[in-house]
Amino acid sequence: MSSENPAFVLKTVKNVVLENRPMKPLQPKEVRVHIEQTGICGSDVHYWQKGRIGKFIMEDGKDMVLGHELAGTVVELGSEVTTLKKGDRVSVEPGVPCRYCDLCRDGKYNMCEDMVFAATPPWDGTLQRYYNVAYDYCYKIPDHMDMEEAALVEPVTVAVQACKRADLRGRDFVVVFGCGPIGLLCQAVAKALGCKKVIGVDISDGRLQFAKTYGADGVFKMPPKEENEDAEAYAKRVSATIKKEFDVGEHGADVILEATGAEPCIQTGVFLARHEGRFVQTGMGREFVSFPVTEALVKQLNWTGTIRYSTGCYPTAVDLVASGKIDVKRLVTNRFKFEEAEKAFELVKEGRTDVIKVMIAGVTDETKI
Amino acid sequence: MSSENPAFVLKTVKNVVLENRPMKPLQPKEVRVHIEQTGICGSDVHYWQKGRIGKFIMEDGKDMVLGHELAGTVVELGSEVTTLKKGDRVSVEPGVPCRYCDLCRDGKYNMCEDMVFAATPPWDGTLQRYYNVAYDYCYKIPDHMDMEEAALVEPVTVAVQACKRADLRGRDFVVVFGCGPIGLLCQAVAKALGCKKVIGVDISDGRLQFAKTYGADGVFKMPPKEENEDAEAYAKRVSATIKKEFDVGEHGADVILEATGAEPCIQTGVFLARHEGRFVQTGMGREFVSFPVTEALVKQLNWTGTIRYSTGCYPTAVDLVASGKIDVKRLVTNRFKFEEAEKAFELVKEGRTDVIKVMIAGVTDETKI
Amino acid sequence: MSSENPAFVLKTVKNVVLENRPMKPLQPKEVRVHIEQTGICGSDVHYWQKGRIGKFIMEDGKDMVLGHELAGTVVELGSEVTTLKKGDRVSVEPGVPCRYCDLCRDGKYNMCEDMVFAATPPWDGTLQRYYNVAYDYCYKIPDHMDMEEAALVEPVTVAVQACKRADLRGRDFVVVFGCGPIGLLCQAVAKALGCKKVIGVDISDGRLQFAKTYGADGVFKMPPKEENEDAEAYAKRVSATIKKEFDVGEHGADVILEATGAEPCIQTGVFLARHEGRFVQTGMGREFVSFPVTEALVKQLNWTGTIRYSTGCYPTAVDLVASGKIDVKRLVTNRFKFEEAEKAFELVKEGRTDVIKVMIAGVTDETKI
Amino acid sequence: MSSENPAFVLKTVKNVVLENRPMKPLQPKEVRVHIEQTGICGSDVHYWQKGRIGKFIMEDGKDMVLGHELAGTVVELGSEVTTLKKGDRVSVEPGVPCRYCDLCRDGKYNMCEDMVFAATPPWDGTLQRYYNVAYDYCYKIPDHMDMEEAALVEPVTVAVQACKRADLRGRDFVVVFGCGPIGLLCQAVAKALGCKKVIGVDISDGRLQFAKTYGADGVFKMPPKEENEDAEAYAKRVSATIKKEFDVGEHGADVILEATGAEPCIQTGVFLARHEGRFVQTGMGREFVSFPVTEALVKQLNWTGTIRYSTGCYPTAVDLVASGKIDVKRLVTNRFKFEEAEKAFELVKEGRTDVIKVMIAGVTDETKI
Repeated sequence: MSSENPAFVLKTVKNVVLENRPMKPLQPKEVRVHIEQTGICGSDVHYWQKGRIGKFIMEDGKDMVLGHELAGTVVELGSEVTTLKKGDRVSVEPGVPCRYCDLCRDGKYNMCEDMVFAATPPWDGTLQRYYNVAYDYCYKIPDHMDMEEAALVEPVTVAVQACKRADLRGRDFVVVFGCGPIGLLCQAVAKALGCKKVIGVDISDGRLQFAKTYGADGVFKMPPKEENEDAEAYAKRVSATIKKEFDVGEHGADVILEATGAEPCIQTGVFLARHEGRFVQTGMGREFVSFPVTEALVKQLNWTGTIRYSTGCYPTAVDLVASGKIDVKRLVTNRFKFEEAEKAFELVKEGRTDVIKVMIAGVTDETKI
Repeated sequence: MSSENPAFVLKTVKNVVLENRPMKPLQPKEVRVHIEQTGICGSDVHYWQKGRIGKFIMEDGKDMVLGHELAGTVVELGSEVTTLKKGDRVSVEPGVPCRYCDLCRDGKYNMCEDMVFAATPPWDGTLQRYYNVAYDYCYKIPDHMDMEEAALVEPVTVAVQACKRADLRGRDFVVVFGCGPIGLLCQAVAKALGCKKVIGVDISDGRLQFAKTYGADGVFKMPPKEENEDAEAYAKRVSATIKKEFDVGEHGADVILEATGAEPCIQTGVFLARHEGRFVQTGMGREFVSFPVTEALVKQLNWTGTIRYSTGCYPTAVDLVASGKIDVKRLVTNRFKFEEAEKAFELVKEGRTDVIKVMIAGVTDETKI
Repeated sequence: MSSENPAFVLKTVKNVVLENRPMKPLQPKEVRVHIEQTGICGSDVHYWQKGRIGKFIMEDGKDMVLGHELAGTVVELGSEVTTLKKGDRVSVEPGVPCRYCDLCRDGKYNMCEDMVFAATPPWDGTLQRYYNVAYDYCYKIPDHMDMEEAALVEPVTVAVQACKRADLRGRDFVVVFGCGPIGLLCQAVAKALGCKKVIGVDISDGRLQFAKTYGADGVFKMPPKEENEDAEAYAKRVSATIKKEFDVGEHGADVILEATGAEPCIQTGVFLARHEGRFVQTGMGREFVSFPVTEALVKQLNWTGTIRYSTGCYPTAVDLVASGKIDVKRLVTNRFKFEEAEKAFELVKEGRTDVIKVMIAGVTDETKI
Repeated sequence: MSSENPAFVLKTVKNVVLENRPMKPLQPKEVRVHIEQTGICGSDVHYWQKGRIGKFIMEDGKDMVLGHELAGTVVELGSEVTTLKKGDRVSVEPGVPCRYCDLCRDGKYNMCEDMVFAATPPWDGTLQRYYNVAYDYCYKIPDHMDMEEAALVEPVTVAVQACKRADLRGRDFVVVFGCGPIGLLCQAVAKALGCKKVIGVDISDGRLQFAKTYGADGVFKMPPKEENEDAEAYAKRVSATIKKEFDVGEHGADVILEATGAEPCIQTGVFLARHEGRFVQTGMGREFVSFPVTEALVKQLNWTGTIRYSTGCYPTAVDLVASGKIDVKRLVTNRFKFEEAEKAFELVKEGRTDVIKVMIAGVTDETKI
């Protein structure tokens, strides 16, 4: 174990540096993980550029290590850890809840308000050599999984939780709005969970083409609005088109997974859902959207949201990747060394449709900072 | 049994008459009910004034008998009816579904698209001497219940279904937006179902005062918007005020029943609900509302709608009234004879806050048309 | 359409004949189906040998046509049927409920006490040329499905309902006790619905070998009891062995599908299930069994039963067969002409482990009775 | 705070003493509670007499303080406790789970296998002056609740969890087998949660008479078996009698709460439940019972067990007592000083039907040991 701990740190908005950070003391129920791969997520870029997401705001004068999709190797054990050993290769769940509030005690730890979540102010993320974390939030991976796959268990888990919120079951007809990383993984997870048909929707031809070869049975490109077409007419027209094109059935889709946050997608999804269909919002966009409340009411739509991940999601995601049901490596379009982290962030910021997932390797003995 | 069948008929928009209507032949599984009381609902007035509600539209040249909150006495039995007898006093569920579609077969008959619903075009309502209806949609009432109470089982049932959709359970903390007839009954039913605390919200002092003496443990008057306050700020401020004033608890209300359809109420309700709280929309207003989607997402709010009533709701409502748990007679503010039906409709149209429920008696031998 | 209606009739216990039966008049919402394949089920043989199953008892002097796993071609339409046409090839759900009782109205029609169920006293079954049935209980099959497959949709649907009762979801770990036709189909359906691992259990090596090549990921042979081993010790030992052999995980199986009705299997299943695991009893054996109630209590086991099929099960089963997810033809071990029906029943009665499913063709113009 | 810690200790089976026990050091998230009342539960007596319950066994040479139904006053705070203060009067949940296992993380902490539960070997109970416990397992009580009431929140919570497992909802028809302390409280809680009718069943006239004045709307005495009547005939006869006597309705009771563990009650309950009724086993008796599996299967009975209490149960129980919905003081039939603890245990052991709940006061400055 090295005594140096190089880290990729957001000092102030738009200002990142590589620097050594002190290593934190290890608590009795924690392990120290040597980070070997971190995937970049849109939220990391958002903090870099804006310094905040919603109510999570970087305080002046408080910097923060970025990164939260991670995997690595256990290098040190807290005094009370018995279920892991040095050398274990693990995928790490990046948020550890307080375990004491009502939400934690009720199995809803994903909404714990005292969660320590990597790269969410004021908590440091995982783009550093070492990361300390509670032992029960580390999940051993089998030998045949590599560290990229292990790091990408994180976004798979987001999709697993979305499907859990949708109470997804085999033979459901599922429409997923969005073919970015989360949308693609929602499609792949829904398919792996036995859904009858999974349709991916997007506005980018490139993404749709990829989706078709990934988890979707069919794909659909959102059309432009017609002249003088209002939101209701558009949502009705597009949902009717999708129903017809994919033989959705008399009543509509069993499940809508909305992974864009875009108003026209949300509206179309409501019209596309069946009576008592399940609609799960996972994409975040504007704080308020114009929502077709009467349509949702008369069909007794079950609308809900999904945030992070809850009990059982990580093990399921590890299993989906380990068993080959979800091929996360196909999502990796770009790879960077640790010292190139800023270049990696720049690439994600561009938002090119040919860039799906960007990975940053961990610190090695060769890393120069 | 009389051979005359006087009826209160909507001939064209805003144009009603009393006239004799031919009696329909009785089907084998139907009974003929002599109507003795009909309550007026906002939707009846809406058809009178507009000729349509949503996709239900009166066709040119097709008139329609109004009224759908009803009770009466069985006067004739279809050939296959064995569970009722002449003279039975019944509360009648006004919508009979097709029994053949997937929704009917799945216990979701309230959303059946081939429902025959009283006073919904093209189907005649109950403001006539006789009404034919499937035997299983008639519910016997005990001797001590009168016909007004039996007719008002209908709006009670709407509230029972709303509470069913909310998966309401004893000791829930419930906030009901709206203190009109449905809002008041939602409050009373929630209380009768064992809820811990029920708060009624409205903008009318008079209604709030009534609510306080009816089903609500506490009432709250929606405040005006402050200058330059946007929707989000308003919803946050008002929900915080309600939480504080009624000691809602750390996280928010377990259940929101939204019986106004008004945008500021919907928005406030979303901020007021707890994590994974249950929000049921029963009030209908505009087709689209501005919805705080991010707030709803991060708290994994369970939002749904409620429409009409489903299996078991009528018996529960009869029992709630019969057992004295819900005193519907206190809602009756005005009573009219059958031949005064138009006056009754005029009164409801005025929308006075001192008018809650208006009843129209059935045709008697003295009725002059 | 022929005017003759040959039928395979159980006259009295153990006494069957081929004879012409009068054709029943067609009701407005019925279709007449020319039966082309019928599979034999254990219950058919049971009526033949015993004249009763549970509370369903053949009355003296009332004979009954046997058979209830069926498919055929629509040859005549009732006056109100609009969704089918002559020549449609259909799989037929053999039980039509009353549509009027609380259970029917609540979507629980499988438990309707006025169900008309083929080959359940006093109702005739489908081993005849023609069978009349409500149009909505006929399910069109695609051209590439043959009539054997269409008839075997029935037992597939039994398995679909069992999985529905188990609230089965993707990545569940499932153990199925029993590798007879229903057990095998439970395994295959569970796998098609995305379960992580499905284990088949039986006492017959031949059946286990077949199961391994069908839906099960692994199979386990119930061992003999050891000397002086009581029921609890046996159940604990066997469940521990299964947990270890198949890497069930710390807590136990998510779902137990019990398709034998045998006491040691039920007992072992309870010990094998995880905390709040789901246990579905589908096999019927003795009326009372010795049940490990304390073990079930302390793990808050969710135990339930499953009977027949409910809304959506038939379409799902048709889709599972049509899409190739379930290969029912591999279950067919023996085929008979209509006039050989008794030979077919004799074969099933023998209970040989190499006989899985026995089919009887429909009446043709060549059929001699 | 005293430096003495007198305790009522089970040294070996049947052998109890009063002796001073060392005070344990306080952990950062614990508080020290001065115990003021402890109720005696059957399980305490069972350990005293047998030294074990199920898999929980006193080891040779390891003694144990008895008692687990407790209330007291906070006298010392751990360094990280912020939500309580010295002098707070609290009802204490006697089992604190590990917070790290899958069950804890999933909100099923009542089944945690590393639970520290008062007076369950090897963990000391609460019949001592001071008891240390995690701060979040202490629930503040309002000023108007006394310490007896606060201690008796524990058995109320057992009933709340049973009702939670039963997914109890307003207007359910509930039959509770057993009128001991837990049965009585199940009846009272079910009533407080809005159930339509609650029937109490027992074999003791005295208990039934008490039940009638407590939570039950009606009571029923289990009759003796008739000559040559087998278990099935008895269960059918008794369940039919109950259905008729209490106008249960066509199909049977919505919910059965079985609080006796007695075989005839379990069997009768299965026959008494409606289709898809909910049956919750809370009483523990023999490890195996003869269970009417076929009856349970064909009605798709939802059978489950209940153990201890889970999130939200304690606050609900505190609220039920504080609001006067449940009058626990009426259950207290006998009161003892701390130094009379053994006499109190002797009394409970006798099992007299006029003894419901026996309370032992906490150690005071006057207590002589």
